[in-house]
Amino acid sequence: MSEPKRLAEAFLQTTYQVAGHSKRDVQQLKQAFEAVDGGTASDVYGSGPIIEEFQQKMAQYLGKETAVFFPSGTMAQQIALRIWCDHKGIKRVGYHPLSHLELHEENALQELHGIESVHLTDRDSVIRLEDVQRLQEEVACVLLELPQREIGGQLPSYEELVAISAHCREKGIHLHLDGARLFEILPYYQKSAEEVCALFDSVYVSFYKGIGGIAGAILAGDAAFTEESKVWKRRYGGDLISLYPYIVSADYYFDLRVGKMEQYYADAKELAALYNQCHAVTTRPEVPVSNMFHVHVAVPKEKLESIVASICEETGIGLTHYVRETAEQTSYYEVGVGDRYAAIPKEELRHAFQLLNKKLSGVE
Amino acid sequence: MSEPKRLAEAFLQTTYQVAGHSKRDVQQLKQAFEAVDGGTASDVYGSGPIIEEFQQKMAQYLGKETAVFFPSGTMAQQIALRIWCDHKGIKRVGYHPLSHLELHEENALQELHGIESVHLTDRDSVIRLEDVQRLQEEVACVLLELPQREIGGQLPSYEELVAISAHCREKGIHLHLDGARLFEILPYYQKSAEEVCALFDSVYVSFYKGIGGIAGAILAGDAAFTEESKVWKRRYGGDLISLYPYIVSADYYFDLRVGKMEQYYADAKELAALYNQCHAVTTRPEVPVSNMFHVHVAVPKEKLESIVASICEETGIGLTHYVRETAEQTSYYEVGVGDRYAAIPKEELRHAFQLLNKKLSGVE
Repeated sequence: MSEPKRLAEAFLQTTYQVAGHSKRDVQQLKQAFEAVDGGTASDVYGSGPIIEEFQQKMAQYLGKETAVFFPSGTMAQQIALRIWCDHKGIKRVGYHPLSHLELHEENALQELHGIESVHLTDRDSVIRLEDVQRLQEEVACVLLELPQREIGGQLPSYEELVAISAHCREKGIHLHLDGARLFEILPYYQKSAEEVCALFDSVYVSFYKGIGGIAGAILAGDAAFTEESKVWKRRYGGDLISLYPYIVSADYYFDLRVGKMEQYYADAKELAALYNQCHAVTTRPEVPVSNMFHVHVAVPKEKLESIVASICEETGIGLTHYVRETAEQTSYYEVGVGDRYAAIPKEELRHAFQLLNKKLSGVE
Repeated sequence: MSEPKRLAEAFLQTTYQVAGHSKRDVQQLKQAFEAVDGGTASDVYGSGPIIEEFQQKMAQYLGKETAVFFPSGTMAQQIALRIWCDHKGIKRVGYHPLSHLELHEENALQELHGIESVHLTDRDSVIRLEDVQRLQEEVACVLLELPQREIGGQLPSYEELVAISAHCREKGIHLHLDGARLFEILPYYQKSAEEVCALFDSVYVSFYKGIGGIAGAILAGDAAFTEESKVWKRRYGGDLISLYPYIVSADYYFDLRVGKMEQYYADAKELAALYNQCHAVTTRPEVPVSNMFHVHVAVPKEKLESIVASICEETGIGLTHYVRETAEQTSYYEVGVGDRYAAIPKEELRHAFQLLNKKLSGVE
């Protein structure tokens, strides 16, 4: 059996898993709908209490005038950027070279809108004020992803964020928040969602990362912006006759978990410290600023797969179900802490990390 | 109270409704998931048995090599047309002036793809072979909607369809089927889905019309076509991490209702005959060729709203919950027959139509 497959299968047999909330299965939906009356009316093409009330709730939470529910963040963010480009009459936006738009959307911004992108910094850094200040080309909009997921979930300081926002306002550059993990960073910033969102013209948040819903996104901003976004939502085929399967679950898991972000953040720091005590391991960032971080290990991918699989088998604890290779032939994986972490007996967790350390040290 | 509102409210109080399957409510979802085990794994970005097996099932049913599940037909059809335009290097397609793309998608084909459209016929006709033959401008693709919904659900003869298909193949024009109501026309054509779809290069079907699911669509064609459609599905933000809420319900209601299309078709003919016996009423088409037709009444909209509302109140039978105005100041509404029709006692239904006739004749 190949090492990736052995790891994936060993992980499936574990008693405890370190990351996430639960399996992605039908139970997620059943649980969310359990207390919902069958007679509750569906939304119909964006209308009806089930969608309008959730949109109002999220607008209020984010401190924006209005909010629109979308099937996906991919759709919501492209639309936000298109709207800002149309407003400015400039078909160019600035973002991180590892943004979701750059990596996971098949060049959609160019293919569907003819919008060019400018990379504001290098692949290893967070975007700083000076990156925005030294922009040579005019852009309609700057997109900031908080935290920057593909570099382990790093953040600028809040002061830097405020300075970037002030600079963009002064220069007439729209500022959009990729807040796929916005809920998760509020404990570090010690700010409300409203305070963070006030720095941005438009905001997207996701309901299947830290919130653990099934899918779906909210795009929020002023009323003129969100009205325009609804026209584009229809153009994209995102204005489904019924979005309630995602809305009901988003609402349910939002209520269940938005108050637990402080706990996930504390757990992530504890877990990262356990990793950093191990030979050849560093987390990125070293001290997490949200519920997530990347585990970098100075051994080849296959070697790490083999070690983690054996830890699954020997301890019943699943550290990760996959490992990726870096350009330097070392290996890494992402960890996002959720409900599962707190359920692991600390003694057993410590034992698993002792074993990881031994195996990486070549002692065992 | 305004007449449209009075009608809508009177309709809500009726014991029997003539059109459709059931209310669009959360029970639709609960029923579909009742027998599904909570441990069933979610699809993940287009992978996993829950999506792959349904795609295979639908590919087989439609007689196409492969099929892809989409959140909406809007998304699926734009993508199909874009792919055929790219293949031909021609940014122009031909369709009916009342097609979904023309009426309900906010000019998306132009706005997102720069694709122009040619109207193949006038607003009142179905597309005939001669319409395609006399095309002046080169088009990459012709889209046929079967039945043509906005003119009451009309169809060309099957022989005409075969001839259009042969012509398009000869001329190298791709032929796409808007099969939003494909299941519903098979009894009239006395053909299998596979036989009809064999005339087309690509096919879209919907799961929330006659099938009565929650939302969702299938796009089918050969493997190269559907692989390309998956790239566009990602670009559109339609490649959701989980589409199973729609897939499970599409599958459940497909199995429940695909065998009932013959019944809906027979019921629609019976119902249309009842309408056509009434003063000032004609159905379009006079004899339905699917489960649907339009009811045209030679009285002003407000007058018809008032009459239908009073029939709701006096008989407990809801003929329609809305009425629309025509350019000629007459009125009409759409009827799509589903499960509800068979539940109405025939005696009570006849009584309602006697009353409708009387009221329209000015006798009562």
